[in-house]
Amino acid sequence: MKTYLDCIPCFMQQALNTGRAAGMEDVQIKALLDTIGAKIKHFKMQNNPPEMANIIYKEIRKTIGQIDPYKDLKQQHIRESLSLYPELKETVEYSEDKLLTAIRIAIAGNIIDMGVNKKFNIYKNLVRSLNQEFAIFDYLKFKTALQKARSVLYLGDNAGESVFDKVLIEELRKPVNFVVRGIPVINDVTKQDAIDSGIEKVADIISSGSTAPATILKLCNKRFLSKFNEADMIISKGQGNFEGLSGTDKPVFFLLKAKCQIIAKELGVNEGDIILKSAV
Amino acid sequence: MKTYLDCIPCFMQQALNTGRAAGMEDVQIKALLDTIGAKIKHFKMQNNPPEMANIIYKEIRKTIGQIDPYKDLKQQHIRESLSLYPELKETVEYSEDKLLTAIRIAIAGNIIDMGVNKKFNIYKNLVRSLNQEFAIFDYLKFKTALQKARSVLYLGDNAGESVFDKVLIEELRKPVNFVVRGIPVINDVTKQDAIDSGIEKVADIISSGSTAPATILKLCNKRFLSKFNEADMIISKGQGNFEGLSGTDKPVFFLLKAKCQIIAKELGVNEGDIILKSAV
Repeated sequence: MKTYLDCIPCFMQQALNTGRAAGMEDVQIKALLDTIGAKIKHFKMQNNPPEMANIIYKEIRKTIGQIDPYKDLKQQHIRESLSLYPELKETVEYSEDKLLTAIRIAIAGNIIDMGVNKKFNIYKNLVRSLNQEFAIFDYLKFKTALQKARSVLYLGDNAGESVFDKVLIEELRKPVNFVVRGIPVINDVTKQDAIDSGIEKVADIISSGSTAPATILKLCNKRFLSKFNEADMIISKGQGNFEGLSGTDKPVFFLLKAKCQIIAKELGVNEGDIILKSAV
Repeated sequence: MKTYLDCIPCFMQQALNTGRAAGMEDVQIKALLDTIGAKIKHFKMQNNPPEMANIIYKEIRKTIGQIDPYKDLKQQHIRESLSLYPELKETVEYSEDKLLTAIRIAIAGNIIDMGVNKKFNIYKNLVRSLNQEFAIFDYLKFKTALQKARSVLYLGDNAGESVFDKVLIEELRKPVNFVVRGIPVINDVTKQDAIDSGIEKVADIISSGSTAPATILKLCNKRFLSKFNEADMIISKGQGNFEGLSGTDKPVFFLLKAKCQIIAKELGVNEGDIILKSAV
């Protein structure tokens, strides 16, 4: 997905938020904003928006080293999500279409991000996602692809959301590789977060090597790329992965909630809509 | 008032909004954002926030000449406000404290900005402002200063709001100089807007010479500066003028609604609060 003009002020806001979350001093954050501001002119609108997030994180690491500013918050999200897990399993168990319910649950988990950290909101959103109409609904294609697939490559998104992903992975009934980022970036799921979410019991965890909060193929490692290129079926969770991969000719299914106006515009849906979209 | 880190993404958003309002092409707006982004590193946090708006407008004028992108919207706000004028006058007439009611009305007019252009909202906000508690209320000082003043220097803010200002000017019962910006900037009141609002009938209209959406003394002309320095009493409307003048040792009274979190923080009030604050 290309970058929109509206993404540019948002980049600056993200740099500010992340600098603060990382505990940087005001003077360090000003220097970060100076650097990011000066880089805007080199940033092409044909680039994916998360490529700027990658640049922002690289600058932060230059200043304060490799850290995981959202570690505590991620742990909290995982704990809260794990406490919902028995209820999520029960919801699937008693539903008419178990796979579809698990897909809805996985999308519901996509609400978990830095801005939303209350159990009540996670729960309220869950109830909504279980009943909400899909704005894009390529479910038939999804079922057909799943039936034929020998295995599934599952691109994770946020920590905590990963517990909701586990519920879907269990319903896929295929061998799954669960993909995490190469290093901590925003509140995206890392290997340790995936293990803490119980993913290890249902899937092999592999790293994409990406340092961006998205799957940007040119930033990924060879091992991941060979799996990506040979996969029968790929499930891509969340906005960042969609921004990085939209336009792909691979058998990717995007599962996400449209959480900003720009993504909604790109998909031709409304903000807040839920999406199950086949890339091909 | 100094600039906060939070103002920086907001500068970029304002540049984008204004570029769009000015009818610039996407590629021109990208170039504008590139330029503004690169200027952030030269922008000191000790500067007033509207100094950046001044830089943004200067860049826009370089690209597309001197224009008044909000002209139609300003005319609409003036028309809508004029249609409320008889009701405003009646509200003052039947109130217990006419001066205070007129102050409340002038502050109510401060809601008119680029984002709020519906009569309904203007009206709803008016009703609210007439009943809302002041978060800062230096009314006694205001009355004392007014009693002693030979004349009042009144720093206008937005077009349309100027009609609400007229109601207060009529209750001051002193000779008034109503100050407008030097050139069109955002939806700030210009000389023609002031005339269209009927200000000419109740005050002398003078220009501050400022090209920023605020009274920034170093950008003002000599005639204004001499009036400012010698004034017995100065009424400063809105956020921009507050941002430019806070910290002054002149007899300024700030009348405004705190419309963003940063201004609210600076004033020690909540967003949405109304303020009557003496500078000294």
